[in-house]
Amino acid sequence: MNNKKAVVLLSGGIDSSVVLYYAKSKGYLPNALIFDYQQRHIRELTSAVNIAKSLKVEYKLIKISFPWKGSALVDKKIKVPKTKLKPQNNIPVTYVPGRNIIFLSFAFSYAEVIKAKTVFIGAHIEDYSGYPDCRPDFLKSFNQMANLGLKNKHIKLSAPLIKKSKKQIIELGLKLKVPFDKTWSCYNGKNIPCNNCDSCFYRIRAFRELGMKDPLIKNEG
Amino acid sequence: MNNKKAVVLLSGGIDSSVVLYYAKSKGYLPNALIFDYQQRHIRELTSAVNIAKSLKVEYKLIKISFPWKGSALVDKKIKVPKTKLKPQNNIPVTYVPGRNIIFLSFAFSYAEVIKAKTVFIGAHIEDYSGYPDCRPDFLKSFNQMANLGLKNKHIKLSAPLIKKSKKQIIELGLKLKVPFDKTWSCYNGKNIPCNNCDSCFYRIRAFRELGMKDPLIKNEG
Repeated sequence: MNNKKAVVLLSGGIDSSVVLYYAKSKGYLPNALIFDYQQRHIRELTSAVNIAKSLKVEYKLIKISFPWKGSALVDKKIKVPKTKLKPQNNIPVTYVPGRNIIFLSFAFSYAEVIKAKTVFIGAHIEDYSGYPDCRPDFLKSFNQMANLGLKNKHIKLSAPLIKKSKKQIIELGLKLKVPFDKTWSCYNGKNIPCNNCDSCFYRIRAFRELGMKDPLIKNEG
Repeated sequence: MNNKKAVVLLSGGIDSSVVLYYAKSKGYLPNALIFDYQQRHIRELTSAVNIAKSLKVEYKLIKISFPWKGSALVDKKIKVPKTKLKPQNNIPVTYVPGRNIIFLSFAFSYAEVIKAKTVFIGAHIEDYSGYPDCRPDFLKSFNQMANLGLKNKHIKLSAPLIKKSKKQIIELGLKLKVPFDKTWSCYNGKNIPCNNCDSCFYRIRAFRELGMKDPLIKNEG
């Protein structure tokens, strides 16, 4: 049998949850990596763990005590902005400097340790309009760098959602029976989604485009 | 005045201590990053802090709770081997998978946060004979990747010791008045250097080549 071990970055949101289910459906043995970086929406960690458990896959929680400042996702002095309905050409204030660089570094290191040949990430087109560390050229460059810096020169970075819209990602997730009611997307870490931040906006719009109600929003009108 | 802020990876060993002093001597304002990764030679952290204090520079200690296994530096089941007097062609068991990838990821992220334009690392020729994440092609590739993945596209990775032998590094450190008695190199984290591991071997040999006694070894014969 081929070694199909994989490391999957799992935030607990829609994209990474779909990627986890996708990897499993393709015959991989996924090991989920979940990061506690004192994010404002720390409750996504519970979602991530629940998603990993729903698929009965191994997961590991890594705590990062890094004093990021200047990002609305970790610095409570900065407000999460209300979503803009026009496309964003600038990097939003929810950008966390080098977050995926750090997460992928751990993922590749872990892949080498457990002898996994693939690392999965849920980056996609709506992310990389705003976040430089979600863009295809960045991901390609990261993979090249990691193959130079590790003992194992053949670990592959896979971003199977990269060209998909949020709507297409949810469609794929529905086929794979992803329990979307267990996921979490809202940047404001309250009990219920704020319905105002970018992350809520893209999520709710995608469900609406599919003629569905977001299963997380019990009382949506 | 130009922005001369820099981030310097500091382990508390000879190389990174010399780099810290070098950066300061060139007019940079160094911010040292020190990593606690549950290394066997955890006492190097004290040395790193003492070196940063000796130069009166800012430093930050980052704790990484990462379950690396299979490396003699973090897995106490694996013995640190006695040094080999012949050149090593293989990657030694003291290799920690992806360590510099992770450390540099934090360093570049931190550089972006504090608006530093340069990241310094003490990698050099005797390291990269054994460790893939110390080689010039890896360092170049890391810099390219980071410039794609960060908002600031112009942070430079500098490895000023890359072509120097340990002897040449100590010579430079002597000129810069690096307090070598405050540094720590031994992979075995005991009270006194073991004089048997690779790290001790290269250090002691270099001091001998300079006709000196390692200031750390008080009672050397």
